[in-house]
Amino acid sequence: MTNTDDLLPIGLEDRLPTEARQVTHAMRTALQAMDSHGYDRVRPPLIEFERSLAGRMDGVQTRNLFRFVDPQSLRTLALRSDMTPQLGRIASNGMAQAPRPLRLCYAGEVATMTADQLDPARQRLQLGAELIGSDTVAAAAEIVMLAVEAVEATGATGISLDFTLPDLVDVLADGAFPLAPDAVEKVRRELDTKDAGGLVAAGGEAYLPLIHAAGSLNEALEKLRAVDAGGALATRIDGLQQVAARVGDRARITLDPTERHGFEYQSWFGFTIYAEGARGALGRGGTYMIRGSEEPATGFSLYLDALLPALPASESAQILFLPPGHDAEAAARLRAIGWRTISALSEQDNPADLGCSHVLDGQNAVPLT
Amino acid sequence: MTNTDDLLPIGLEDRLPTEARQVTHAMRTALQAMDSHGYDRVRPPLIEFERSLAGRMDGVQTRNLFRFVDPQSLRTLALRSDMTPQLGRIASNGMAQAPRPLRLCYAGEVATMTADQLDPARQRLQLGAELIGSDTVAAAAEIVMLAVEAVEATGATGISLDFTLPDLVDVLADGAFPLAPDAVEKVRRELDTKDAGGLVAAGGEAYLPLIHAAGSLNEALEKLRAVDAGGALATRIDGLQQVAARVGDRARITLDPTERHGFEYQSWFGFTIYAEGARGALGRGGTYMIRGSEEPATGFSLYLDALLPALPASESAQILFLPPGHDAEAAARLRAIGWRTISALSEQDNPADLGCSHVLDGQNAVPLT
Repeated sequence: MTNTDDLLPIGLEDRLPTEARQVTHAMRTALQAMDSHGYDRVRPPLIEFERSLAGRMDGVQTRNLFRFVDPQSLRTLALRSDMTPQLGRIASNGMAQAPRPLRLCYAGEVATMTADQLDPARQRLQLGAELIGSDTVAAAAEIVMLAVEAVEATGATGISLDFTLPDLVDVLADGAFPLAPDAVEKVRRELDTKDAGGLVAAGGEAYLPLIHAAGSLNEALEKLRAVDAGGALATRIDGLQQVAARVGDRARITLDPTERHGFEYQSWFGFTIYAEGARGALGRGGTYMIRGSEEPATGFSLYLDALLPALPASESAQILFLPPGHDAEAAARLRAIGWRTISALSEQDNPADLGCSHVLDGQNAVPLT
Repeated sequence: MTNTDDLLPIGLEDRLPTEARQVTHAMRTALQAMDSHGYDRVRPPLIEFERSLAGRMDGVQTRNLFRFVDPQSLRTLALRSDMTPQLGRIASNGMAQAPRPLRLCYAGEVATMTADQLDPARQRLQLGAELIGSDTVAAAAEIVMLAVEAVEATGATGISLDFTLPDLVDVLADGAFPLAPDAVEKVRRELDTKDAGGLVAAGGEAYLPLIHAAGSLNEALEKLRAVDAGGALATRIDGLQQVAARVGDRARITLDPTERHGFEYQSWFGFTIYAEGARGALGRGGTYMIRGSEEPATGFSLYLDALLPALPASESAQILFLPPGHDAEAAARLRAIGWRTISALSEQDNPADLGCSHVLDGQNAVPLT
């Protein structure tokens, strides 16, 4: 019966009932956590002009987008690969007049034409929040805690955070450790890959101690303080400590001050979030400037697919079988207090085969024997 | 600040907070109604092979799909324009071994490259249920009631149903009112447009009374009985009456027995559902055979965008402002009982501007004065 048309393309898959229930439950509980902190959900469309999706933010690669020519506008449209630029567009246009700070959240499917090396998936369920109009330490602390609470709400445990300082090299190059303009990008790259030899070759010898200033937050901050000739990093170090104080013991925190991959558009602060049992990182966040409107913002994104293996099994309600000729009002009353029901379509329907645990007998739910 | 890249393509739009809250609430309540009747949600991907989406069902026009060549398989992929064929694929493949009748539901975004004449939207939020393994009167009654309950759950009122008999011409042509094989399609078309002259010209004079057998269910059934020479339609008429009996007074019912537009793949029974204040029809359903597996099924789809104008305004919880230095535990306790909170990021944040109705004072929520 199966033929190749019935298969799905590589990297695209169905979520059948058990997984669909888990993913949906995780999405709703995480959205509820964001809603309770005053984040209003918006629903941008699946498709936009390619330039709108790719132009608003570094790190979106147009060649990785599903693209097509729009017969109406004769312009290139693309399927979104990331909802963050859509939120930036909404904040700068449809909600330009809304009071700041503006708190928005979102959840939706995103897709890329090619997968990345570690994960074959070409579609993911993205969820996140944006705090628009602020990139202060207070904003960073709020967003980090919101990410932690959103992940906690899904039932995942063992949460950890890895902080980074995306603009570290820019700050130091302007001050304590000057670099020729054409060396800045090279130094950034060598620090990102932690290549000591390459760093020296790029003229970044002064930056060598940064390679080792990674690890658990307090130890790493100690090393960073030792590097901080002239106090150029004092406000960064202080900011990280304030954010960490808000997190308290709700997540383990590490620092990798020179991590840059995935933080191309972040400014002073970035973080990655993990949970025990999850497949790689759950998501990332940080402070940034919205392109075009040049408004400061702080936000995060989570990918629920990565979270799936870390989630507790979600329970379906017990199912009550409604035999032919059952009392429809009694069944409606039981549904109203949380029962799921399955109604017989014929005398042949077998309650046990259909996953039912109980049968309606008169007004009462009786366990299947 | 706005430039053309910030605009959305025609037919694609953002749902900003008020509408997003309404649509999301309607989707969840409708899904909850389906869940309570034992329908398990599945989440198929946004994208599939074009042939898988278009080949499984009549009425899906490939030239209306957003299509692209997959660099991995070198085959044509398409963005789904309808989730129903995806459910048919799941039932016939991933869930081929699950016991029948199989009850599945779904909700998700669908998109078409061109809009239809009446509605410029190119993306819609589709939601529906499929009862797989049965197309009996009992199955039709269950699905019609499920559609009514799903719409009721969203808060919409004034629900009405328009029934149709999609295979009526085939049944009559095989019996009481024989037609030459090449006349069947012409007669169907003339009946669909209710063109009496065209119908006679197509050799379908015997079918003329059907044009007038439309209207409120009981009157229309009366006329249909008069047409029913030889009793060929007796089981159809009886089936419609049984379905209508299940609906009772929860929806007004009309019958248009020759309506065919939108029911190209339905077998003996089809229906359209409406609600007061909605923009056109909310959705359609009926009995059909799943292509490929040739398994009988009954199902319906709703489009929540059409429902939006009919929905009651959804209320956001009252918002509690948390001033700088507030009691974080008191705030968490209040969130746990349903408050939304907005935390001050600086001394400048103004609770009234941010939409707050209350301020946290010590442990207590105090109305803003």
